[in-house]
Amino acid sequence: MNTLDLPSFDDVIAASKRIEGHAHRTPVMTSRTVNEALGAEVFFKCENLQRMGAFKFRGAFNALSKFDARQRQAGVVAFSSGNHAQAIALSAKLLGIPATIVMPHDAPATKVAATKGYGGQVVVYDRYKEDREQIGRDLAEKHGLTLIPPYDHPDVIAGQGTAAKELFEDVGPLDAFFAPLGGGGLLSGCALAARALSPDCKIYGVEPAAGNDGQQSFRSGTIAHIDTPQTIADGAQTQHLGNYTFGIIRRDVDDILTASDDELVECMRFFASRMKLVVEPTGCLGLAAAKQMKAHLEGKRVGILVSGGNVDIARLGSLLGS
Amino acid sequence: MNTLDLPSFDDVIAASKRIEGHAHRTPVMTSRTVNEALGAEVFFKCENLQRMGAFKFRGAFNALSKFDARQRQAGVVAFSSGNHAQAIALSAKLLGIPATIVMPHDAPATKVAATKGYGGQVVVYDRYKEDREQIGRDLAEKHGLTLIPPYDHPDVIAGQGTAAKELFEDVGPLDAFFAPLGGGGLLSGCALAARALSPDCKIYGVEPAAGNDGQQSFRSGTIAHIDTPQTIADGAQTQHLGNYTFGIIRRDVDDILTASDDELVECMRFFASRMKLVVEPTGCLGLAAAKQMKAHLEGKRVGILVSGGNVDIARLGSLLGS
Repeated sequence: MNTLDLPSFDDVIAASKRIEGHAHRTPVMTSRTVNEALGAEVFFKCENLQRMGAFKFRGAFNALSKFDARQRQAGVVAFSSGNHAQAIALSAKLLGIPATIVMPHDAPATKVAATKGYGGQVVVYDRYKEDREQIGRDLAEKHGLTLIPPYDHPDVIAGQGTAAKELFEDVGPLDAFFAPLGGGGLLSGCALAARALSPDCKIYGVEPAAGNDGQQSFRSGTIAHIDTPQTIADGAQTQHLGNYTFGIIRRDVDDILTASDDELVECMRFFASRMKLVVEPTGCLGLAAAKQMKAHLEGKRVGILVSGGNVDIARLGSLLGS
Repeated sequence: MNTLDLPSFDDVIAASKRIEGHAHRTPVMTSRTVNEALGAEVFFKCENLQRMGAFKFRGAFNALSKFDARQRQAGVVAFSSGNHAQAIALSAKLLGIPATIVMPHDAPATKVAATKGYGGQVVVYDRYKEDREQIGRDLAEKHGLTLIPPYDHPDVIAGQGTAAKELFEDVGPLDAFFAPLGGGGLLSGCALAARALSPDCKIYGVEPAAGNDGQQSFRSGTIAHIDTPQTIADGAQTQHLGNYTFGIIRRDVDDILTASDDELVECMRFFASRMKLVVEPTGCLGLAAAKQMKAHLEGKRVGILVSGGNVDIARLGSLLGS
C-alpha cells in the first residue's frame, strides 16, 4: 500500500478550482435544537443541496475535468446503481464527454431514467450472474474508455475533499468532524482537508452497523471484505474500502463508528421536522454518531457532513410517516 | 379605510434593524429544474428555514420589540392555533415578556407543547362555542396585556416585509414576485418592500382555491368574509383580510391568484424530491401560481416566497407517499 501515491491537500485545492462555478458551494446550516441537545456548536455541511443531490458530483466532475483530448473523445465508463452514475453522467454532459454507465438490470427505473436524462448510455447487466467491474473494464479496453470508479481514485477522493475544505473555510477550525463512510472516497478526501485546515480536529467515519467493514479494516490494519450489507443506508452498502481510501483513512482518521437503521430514521425525521431538510439515510450517519458521542462533545465545535438527499419520494413518505 | 395610517417601507427598514441577529437571514435558493420548466430565472426565499419554521417570527419579534416598559411587564396576548402562537411565544421568551396564547381546545398536542415549550401560558377555548378574539380582548383588558393579532397590525406587517426586503437586496430587481396570502400580513409587508426596491415588479398574492376571499376582496374593492375554507393550506385558512393588509394590497398588489390542494401537493413533492426542502402546503402557493403563469414568465426574473415548513411529520409522510 505504501507504494501508492496518495492524493494530498494540494490535490483538494486543485480540485476546488476545477469545480468552482460548476458544483454548488453548499450552505452550512445550524440548529439551536441540536446545539442544545448535544451541548455543542454543530455545523452541518449540506451536500444534500449539491447538484444532483449528493457530494458525488464533486469527485466525478474533478476526475473528468482532468481528461486529456484523447480521453475526452473516447469517453468515460462507470459502474454504479446510484449517485455516482448520475454524477458521472451529468459531469460528462457538462464537459461534452460521452458517458457509458453500467447498471444492474433491476436498478430503479427512476435512476436509469435520470442517468439517461443526463445523456448517459446505459449498459445493463445481471447482478446475480455478471461482474460489473469486469464489464466496466472490458468496455474500457475495447473502446478506449476511461474507467472512473466510484471511490478508489485520487481525483475522485480529491474532489470529495472539497466539501470539507469549504466547511472549514466557512466556520474555521473544529474539534470533531463526522462523515459517512461507504467506500471511503468522501471520508478520505475530507480527512485531507481537515488535517490541513484544522490539524487538531478529531475525524470520525460513520458506517451502517449492518456493514462495519471499514471499522474492521481500521482496527485490523487490513482491508476487510464483507457481503453486501442489508441497511437502509444505500449509499454505504459497499463491501470493502479501496487501497487509496484505506491508505488515507488509516493514516488520518481517528476512529470509525457505526449507526443502526433505527438511528438513521430518527435522524431523517429530525432533519425533516426541525431543519426542514430532506436527507437520505446515508446522509444521517454523521448526526447519528455525534448523538452517540454526546458525552465527548460537550462545549465542542462539531462539523457534520450531510452527504446527500436522494431518496425516492414514496420511500421518504413511508419512512417519515411510519 | 383611508383614515388608517398604513405602514411604509421605512417601517420595514426599522423592523429589519430590530430583528437583526434574532431572526435568520434565510437563504435564497435556486433550482435548474424549475428554471428550465418555467423558462425563467426563479429565486426562492426560504422562510421554511426561518426560526420556528416560518416567516411569522419576523412580525412577532418586531411587534414585541416595540413594547414600552409597561407593556413588557404586563405581557402579550395572542390568539392562534398555528405559527403565530409559536412566533409570539418564542419572541416573548427571547425578550423576557410574559405571553398568553389563546388556543382552541382541539389544537394539535404538538403545537400546544411547542407553545408551552417556549414558555407561553396557554388558555384553551371551545372553538365551536366561544369567540377567540373576544377572549383575547377580555384578557387584554382585564390584565392590561397587549394584544398582537396574527396579521392586521402595522408592526406585524412591517416585520413580515423584511423577508422580501432581504430577497430584493440579495438578488436585485425582479419582474414578478409571488407570496402566499392568508390574512395578508406577509403579502402586504412584502409589497411595501417590493414597491420600494423593485418598482416595476409585478406582485401576486396566492390563496388556496377553496377560500378566495382575498381575490374577491381585491376585485370588488370591499373586504369579503367567508367560512373557514377546507384546504390543506392550513396557514391560509383565514376568513377575511384585515383593514391594514387590504389597504396595502389593493394599492400595491397586481393580482390575486389561487391554487388547488392537488397543485400544492405536487409542489410539496417537487420541493422534497428535487430541492431537498420540506415546505408546508401554504408555503407552496407561490410556486403553484408561478407554474400557472408560465406563459407570462418566460425570460423573466421571478421571486417566490416560501413561507414555512411546519407540517406534522406523519402528515408529511402521507402527503409525500400517497
